[in-house]
Amino acid sequence: MEAKGQGTAEKYAADISSIREAQLRIGPFIHRTPVVSSETLDAIAGRKLLFKCECFQKGGSFKFRGACNAVFSLDDDQAAKGVVTHSSGNYAAALSLAAKLRGIPGYIIIPKNAPKCKVENVKRYGGRVIWSESNLRSREDTATKVLQETGAVLLHPYNDGRTISGQGTISLELLEQAPQLDAIIVPISGGGLISGVALAAKSINPAIRVLAAEPMGANDAAQSKAAGRIITLPETNTIADGLRAFLGDLTCIFALSIFILGDVLAFYQSRPIVRDLVDDMIIVEDKAIVEAMRLCYEILKVVVEPSGAIGLAAVLSDDFRNNPAWKDCSNIGIVLSGGNVDLDVLWDSFRK
Amino acid sequence: MEAKGQGTAEKYAADISSIREAQLRIGPFIHRTPVVSSETLDAIAGRKLLFKCECFQKGGSFKFRGACNAVFSLDDDQAAKGVVTHSSGNYAAALSLAAKLRGIPGYIIIPKNAPKCKVENVKRYGGRVIWSESNLRSREDTATKVLQETGAVLLHPYNDGRTISGQGTISLELLEQAPQLDAIIVPISGGGLISGVALAAKSINPAIRVLAAEPMGANDAAQSKAAGRIITLPETNTIADGLRAFLGDLTCIFALSIFILGDVLAFYQSRPIVRDLVDDMIIVEDKAIVEAMRLCYEILKVVVEPSGAIGLAAVLSDDFRNNPAWKDCSNIGIVLSGGNVDLDVLWDSFRK
Repeated sequence: MEAKGQGTAEKYAADISSIREAQLRIGPFIHRTPVVSSETLDAIAGRKLLFKCECFQKGGSFKFRGACNAVFSLDDDQAAKGVVTHSSGNYAAALSLAAKLRGIPGYIIIPKNAPKCKVENVKRYGGRVIWSESNLRSREDTATKVLQETGAVLLHPYNDGRTISGQGTISLELLEQAPQLDAIIVPISGGGLISGVALAAKSINPAIRVLAAEPMGANDAAQSKAAGRIITLPETNTIADGLRAFLGDLTCIFALSIFILGDVLAFYQSRPIVRDLVDDMIIVEDKAIVEAMRLCYEILKVVVEPSGAIGLAAVLSDDFRNNPAWKDCSNIGIVLSGGNVDLDVLWDSFRK
Repeated sequence: MEAKGQGTAEKYAADISSIREAQLRIGPFIHRTPVVSSETLDAIAGRKLLFKCECFQKGGSFKFRGACNAVFSLDDDQAAKGVVTHSSGNYAAALSLAAKLRGIPGYIIIPKNAPKCKVENVKRYGGRVIWSESNLRSREDTATKVLQETGAVLLHPYNDGRTISGQGTISLELLEQAPQLDAIIVPISGGGLISGVALAAKSINPAIRVLAAEPMGANDAAQSKAAGRIITLPETNTIADGLRAFLGDLTCIFALSIFILGDVLAFYQSRPIVRDLVDDMIIVEDKAIVEAMRLCYEILKVVVEPSGAIGLAAVLSDDFRNNPAWKDCSNIGIVLSGGNVDLDVLWDSFRK
């Protein structure tokens, strides 16, 4: 029951067609990740929970879907000189692997304070690590320099239609594996994941609801929604290191860009996927994220990073449980987005 | 290409028919567990590894398959008064859950030194915990007392054809999910798991090889094989708490029972599944088990208990790598048998 031809392609940076194309393009390279469940967790949550295990994806997170789609969307001339991104996280490893599979260089600009296991992942997949300071300015300056020196293509971790289309393939698989879902809960950070998931899921089943889970210490999406414009925070403070990015203009709540086109001043109203397609946002404290992570270990037997556990934390929160809007949601899909975590760091968080 | 009618039913306590019946019987209750893989681990091992995730099974281990088949094989009269077993481990939780699903009491005799998380599992699934001392004598005496008081049926954790048939369903799934396998590696303890896996796998594909992985500190199976009779050890010493049992007469290398039938002294030659169908045994040190467990966490993102990780440890061992007999095995199935582990205990083992 697919709602085709709704004209989402004109409205947004991706649509069900681009997501289906992505599925064909990346199919040979990605894992079709399993969906697992636990009656014990169902009893705790008071509903049936179905966990889409993107922590088992290549590179250890969903990011490989988008990176793979972006890299294999390039024509040979574009691709030849390689790709570059700046990321301290899972996109860095994902792009390294995608570049390796395409046989082109992957230049990864990494801030000096990045988690050790994520840097190791980049190296494991053959990415060329280029260090920067941890502030955004240094990262962008370093990227500009690398672009000039190499002629490589800059790929954005989330604010890119090809990336969003790749992430959307999660919903294509999930709704085949669990067609009975009433709702899907997805971590929100830059918005690439939730944009792809929402576009595909609502195209297949317009009645399905999509919820964003966001950490209290990096709740720019919720603030942006409330303000009706993109809010960026002066600093973020959360254990969920994968959820510290801010929404982009393609994924966002609202954005108006002004730029020069030839000699004309042009206005460009971006396509607010998150505003249009995300039904609600649930804010979660770090303590609840750690507790959810422990449940994933002890009951599901799945290793997730803090960002990956936030969907479960959201479903177990009082905000969600007590909201009458979600009372009739009896089958909930939860995207366990990634599993890249330093065991030492994890352990310290459990012992606190 | 199933080798039917080979008469295994007459030879052994289970066969492909009883395993297929078990699959139908337990199908509505068990998880069809996923198979996961990692190119990083493939590169380390020098072969394609396919991991059957029984740690995601209900109750956290494969034991639920056998327990469920045994409990649902009982007729109503037999079942009415409940079931009893003595186990400190995963079978205890598995039987509790199976009894709960059938709506009958499950009496579980547990030694006082059992791991905390495994006792919690029993309680979680509604098992009635009855404490005993940790020695076998006290466990058996307590069981006898409970049987007399309740009229319940005693079920053995592994030395039972119904249990073996249930465990065999792993191979039916695995060879559908990964028909290309050349070999399957299975932890060995009491032998119920490997017996079921070997019977089913070799019936479906007679060319497939089945290997046992056993910890150095509880290597009774290897010693039994060498001696040509069942060896029990005065004590065991391994981190793999699930692998401390000894082979039974149904699963074993060799056994001859003598008993009174009417007024005749009868001899009963048991059916040595392990001797006949297990191609080789690989002995693994605890250090290698801990290292394999870490790889499961860091790369596969799967939580396994020490017993569950031993198959990976075996594949990575020099004994396996340097043995010309396994050189041509390029697709290897590894049964990750369980994931019930106290996180504190685990962490201490990583830090040693």
